[in-house]
Amino acid sequence: MITEISVKTNSKNALVDITEKIREAVRKSGIKNGICHLYAPHTTAAITINENYDPSVGVDIVGEMNKLIPMNGHYQHQEGNAAAHIKSAIIGSSRSVFIENGNLVLGTWQGIFFCEFDGPRRRKVLMKIVTED
Amino acid sequence: MITEISVKTNSKNALVDITEKIREAVRKSGIKNGICHLYAPHTTAAITINENYDPSVGVDIVGEMNKLIPMNGHYQHQEGNAAAHIKSAIIGSSRSVFIENGNLVLGTWQGIFFCEFDGPRRRKVLMKIVTED
Amino acid sequence: MITEISVKTNSKNALVDITEKIREAVRKSGIKNGICHLYAPHTTAAITINENYDPSVGVDIVGEMNKLIPMNGHYQHQEGNAAAHIKSAIIGSSRSVFIENGNLVLGTWQGIFFCEFDGPRRRKVLMKIVTED
Repeated sequence: MITEISVKTNSKNALVDITEKIREAVRKSGIKNGICHLYAPHTTAAITINENYDPSVGVDIVGEMNKLIPMNGHYQHQEGNAAAHIKSAIIGSSRSVFIENGNLVLGTWQGIFFCEFDGPRRRKVLMKIVTED
Repeated sequence: MITEISVKTNSKNALVDITEKIREAVRKSGIKNGICHLYAPHTTAAITINENYDPSVGVDIVGEMNKLIPMNGHYQHQEGNAAAHIKSAIIGSSRSVFIENGNLVLGTWQGIFFCEFDGPRRRKVLMKIVTED
Repeated sequence: MITEISVKTNSKNALVDITEKIREAVRKSGIKNGICHLYAPHTTAAITINENYDPSVGVDIVGEMNKLIPMNGHYQHQEGNAAAHIKSAIIGSSRSVFIENGNLVLGTWQGIFFCEFDGPRRRKVLMKIVTED
């Protein structure tokens, strides 16, 4: 079973904290132990895990990605979003998190982020849980 | 069971679209629902997922990786391919894709790419599918 | 079941080879076939897979990450470790490796590395194995 989680992004580049949405989807699944696989079916977005306590961490990640891969660089792809594709390929479109006793196993400071690189848009994250024997 | 998929690369750096090869291997497995884990057993290559409709996207990803991590930088590793190792570590040697009704679950524009950073070579991608209950 | 593996890091930035620790943990699990999921519950560290034969490869990866994401850049996060968070988000906090006949399936030159970006510290890697039918 695949669960679809909606994410609305509000700017061109942004990290959106989706930890609570994922936690809620895991709870609804009723699954107690396993691996929660998260997948962004987009080519100009990604998923990453990092600190969600201080929102400035997400701002720094976005800022540094913009500096490394400038939006107005010389690219062959002619739709104006080549930088977004490159960022997406680097960060990666999926992440996996363990589930134990029905809860996501995250480090103290970790949260799950949807990375928007070509927004604002309505996006989705797909979730599939593999249960443990 | 591990399925081995051969990939021939034709240049030093290139993104090779392996979507159809993976789709075919999933079909042959007969598995209807699960997670398709893909793994590159190489230290100068990687796997990523991004747009495969416009081939210039792959060209841009390769071009930007070359710009960020120059082949002729000052590195300690003395085999001339240190940049390839670094790119491989950043992009990552594995990706996972969902399978539903025997098909890969990819976004509209998504394809799976083998990333060659030290070719041309004969390479391989390993596939293992975890079935869903 | 989640297995916790301790990692001691000795410098600010370093790649620590944890291949033998993971191999030993897989052996202890008694599991013969499946997927070994590795997860770093930290926001200033990561896991990657690359060459562990020549130690200079790890040195080059660390060196290039430091060059791309300078520790003294202009960041909003005020704890002095913003660069470490960004590196962690880029490399990624997890990796998955196949298990066949009780052994890790790694390429000839591949090893598993814990990436420390804000050490020295006592860290941990979480391991969960999904068995194959």
